[in-house]
Amino acid sequence: MRRRIPMSTVVAETTPQADQPARTTLREGAFGHARALACRECGHEVALGPHYACPECFGPLEVAYDFPAVTREEVEAGPANIWRYKALLPVPTDIEQSPNTEPGYTRLLKAHNLGRELGIANLWVKDDSTNPTNSFKDRVVACALSAARELHAKVFACPSTGNLANAVAAAGARAGIKTVVFIPSNLEKPKQVNSAVYTNNLVAVEGNYDDVNKLASEIAGEEEGWAFVNVNVRPFYAEGSKTLGYEIAEQLGWRLPDQIVIPVASGSQLTKVDKAFQELIKLGLVEDKPYKVFGAQATGCSPVSVAYKDGVDVIRPVKPDTIAKSLAIGNPADGIYVLDICRRTGGAVEDISDDEVRDGILLLARTEGIFTETAGGTTVGVLKKLVETGQLDPELETVVINTGMGLKTLDAVADHVGAAATIAPNYPAFVAAGIL
Amino acid sequence: MRRRIPMSTVVAETTPQADQPARTTLREGAFGHARALACRECGHEVALGPHYACPECFGPLEVAYDFPAVTREEVEAGPANIWRYKALLPVPTDIEQSPNTEPGYTRLLKAHNLGRELGIANLWVKDDSTNPTNSFKDRVVACALSAARELHAKVFACPSTGNLANAVAAAGARAGIKTVVFIPSNLEKPKQVNSAVYTNNLVAVEGNYDDVNKLASEIAGEEEGWAFVNVNVRPFYAEGSKTLGYEIAEQLGWRLPDQIVIPVASGSQLTKVDKAFQELIKLGLVEDKPYKVFGAQATGCSPVSVAYKDGVDVIRPVKPDTIAKSLAIGNPADGIYVLDICRRTGGAVEDISDDEVRDGILLLARTEGIFTETAGGTTVGVLKKLVETGQLDPELETVVINTGMGLKTLDAVADHVGAAATIAPNYPAFVAAGIL
Repeated sequence: MRRRIPMSTVVAETTPQADQPARTTLREGAFGHARALACRECGHEVALGPHYACPECFGPLEVAYDFPAVTREEVEAGPANIWRYKALLPVPTDIEQSPNTEPGYTRLLKAHNLGRELGIANLWVKDDSTNPTNSFKDRVVACALSAARELHAKVFACPSTGNLANAVAAAGARAGIKTVVFIPSNLEKPKQVNSAVYTNNLVAVEGNYDDVNKLASEIAGEEEGWAFVNVNVRPFYAEGSKTLGYEIAEQLGWRLPDQIVIPVASGSQLTKVDKAFQELIKLGLVEDKPYKVFGAQATGCSPVSVAYKDGVDVIRPVKPDTIAKSLAIGNPADGIYVLDICRRTGGAVEDISDDEVRDGILLLARTEGIFTETAGGTTVGVLKKLVETGQLDPELETVVINTGMGLKTLDAVADHVGAAATIAPNYPAFVAAGIL
Repeated sequence: MRRRIPMSTVVAETTPQADQPARTTLREGAFGHARALACRECGHEVALGPHYACPECFGPLEVAYDFPAVTREEVEAGPANIWRYKALLPVPTDIEQSPNTEPGYTRLLKAHNLGRELGIANLWVKDDSTNPTNSFKDRVVACALSAARELHAKVFACPSTGNLANAVAAAGARAGIKTVVFIPSNLEKPKQVNSAVYTNNLVAVEGNYDDVNKLASEIAGEEEGWAFVNVNVRPFYAEGSKTLGYEIAEQLGWRLPDQIVIPVASGSQLTKVDKAFQELIKLGLVEDKPYKVFGAQATGCSPVSVAYKDGVDVIRPVKPDTIAKSLAIGNPADGIYVLDICRRTGGAVEDISDDEVRDGILLLARTEGIFTETAGGTTVGVLKKLVETGQLDPELETVVINTGMGLKTLDAVADHVGAAATIAPNYPAFVAAGIL
């Protein structure tokens, strides 16, 4: 039953006629309640498949659904991972039966201490650092893995410098599908190890991340049966971020927050959390109410924040220069949609310096016991700045998303913390040191 | 209402009479359904308090309960963390209201690939690496924190070289209680950073772990109001490991496994998982059935395994020399109880070399996408050896516990994995490299 499917970049042989050969190889319900891939720009719909660009206007394709009725009780009876929302994702109804990393349903912590520190009355941290490979990427990769499986892909791959590589290599190992992970050859050894433990096929590419990315697109176009999670199965992959929005609403007691602060790299996560909130409203799972969405960037890579502040609709690409490397996308694909959403909801996009990123990491660790990576430091630091500049209302219920964990970017803070004292191993020495 | 309570090592002023002053400062239900601290050796009971050694025979004190009736439905209606079992822990009924790290309810993964590799028909991995600070220590520390709070402790402290330090510093930060963490001064910088991000009071002690430990006991005896999690509130702390056993049974569908493999450092975790299984049987939450418990050690620190193989009841302390540092306790406090349990249930204690520990890490990563630390490598490697030597029945349902995560012991595998190829950033170079 397995056959090789060309993972083409645009739709060619698989236009949405029912008698297409590529369609017939898909099993019934392979993508759950997903109906088609719809262009975000022109609305043109194409058949579900390994496509990411609209054949009409080259706009980005997004999964469109015919949702069934879904009740809170059905969701609550599901497993403690993202598959509790499987009816709202492009995955088959038996998704739990296929080996996957079972990510999600991470902690939503009431942040009493951080809230007090920042003067925010009602603050929550959604902590995605406790996912299987310690970042939100496990969510999107789990959805991409399901698509790769249903499309009979033979290779599961990505270009990445960090979190995504970990998530792809781990998920592929568990699923028993061959993985190939492409990284810049100058990547630090620890980051290489963190992917190489899972896969024999870590490929170092002489060049920067843009070069690696370009190579991945080239391979996706040339080779058959390769599923590049963030290239040719990107529409399915991106849907995984919706689960962050679903979980926040459910964990608040089926209620949307008033304000939410989200880091912006490609911008995909922010747009998908907004999509999730809109879907929950349409499905009647939460009450319709206004909410404000805020985007967070590091100043060293802040093309969306710059456009927001300039009041323009065009993102001017930049060459990243920041310690927040997991946010360092100079030409963010979904940047314009981030602008749309933040403006439409009355939110904002803001950016902070690398020193403020570091301060954000330590602030979150000292107040809530969460050790985040530079992306989380950025989001917490931006939250602080948003309050100080009056852009965020400290009286409204606010959620901030932490997307990753500090052990992956240890260097960012290594020279800024350490032992308070070094003492001889006896009680008088301890007393003399004056600890506390 | 706060008062300083001497955190004494043995019971003096707080014998179990109802009119004792120390008792009256405890609020009603401070320790849930816990009745007393009972000596594991002689059964003597003393009042609940900051004590860990029996005043009669100096045996270890353990929490004893008068359990209420508990139903599966009540547990299932609880939160997705250890507090779903709060009725079975020495914590108040409103424990969720007090800021804590909300650990537990981690993944139980069906290990198809690892099972196939080892020839085990029905294998599961309980993965505790996704806890808030990435080890099972978050469970025990959460219970110790509750005890410290109820006892009005002013300082939350521990001696540690790694996982415990992270868990204590993080939990203390979130709870807003002062933490002091003692480490050997020669500890690697990354491990220091991983605790120092959370606390200002990281104290480096000139000496080895035994020296640090001794200093902690000295301070616990001299200072008032210090709760050392693994010293004077150890009985409460240790109960947290029971939740691993509860979760495994619940996640299997309220059923005990036939065999379980658990790493042995002090031996506490293994004894508490057995205690959890026994409690579930007594409470009627699972069917009574035989199960075998297996202990895993690294050969470089295998005093319990040596005693098991020698058929003796006495643990001969050793000087640890292994890469599995989180298991490197040369004189394990609960070693004799581990021997008891493994012999009584028909299990065994086994040990493996450091090379086999490394192989175990990579085996788990390659088969199930879980990057474990050296302790997990030890457990997986021992599982393999138990099958090969015929000590574990490959036809029976088996659970193996992973207690921590690989980023904390990266050095163990850093020189053993890496890029498969380094290529120029173009398609012909990729083809020429012959990947796959």
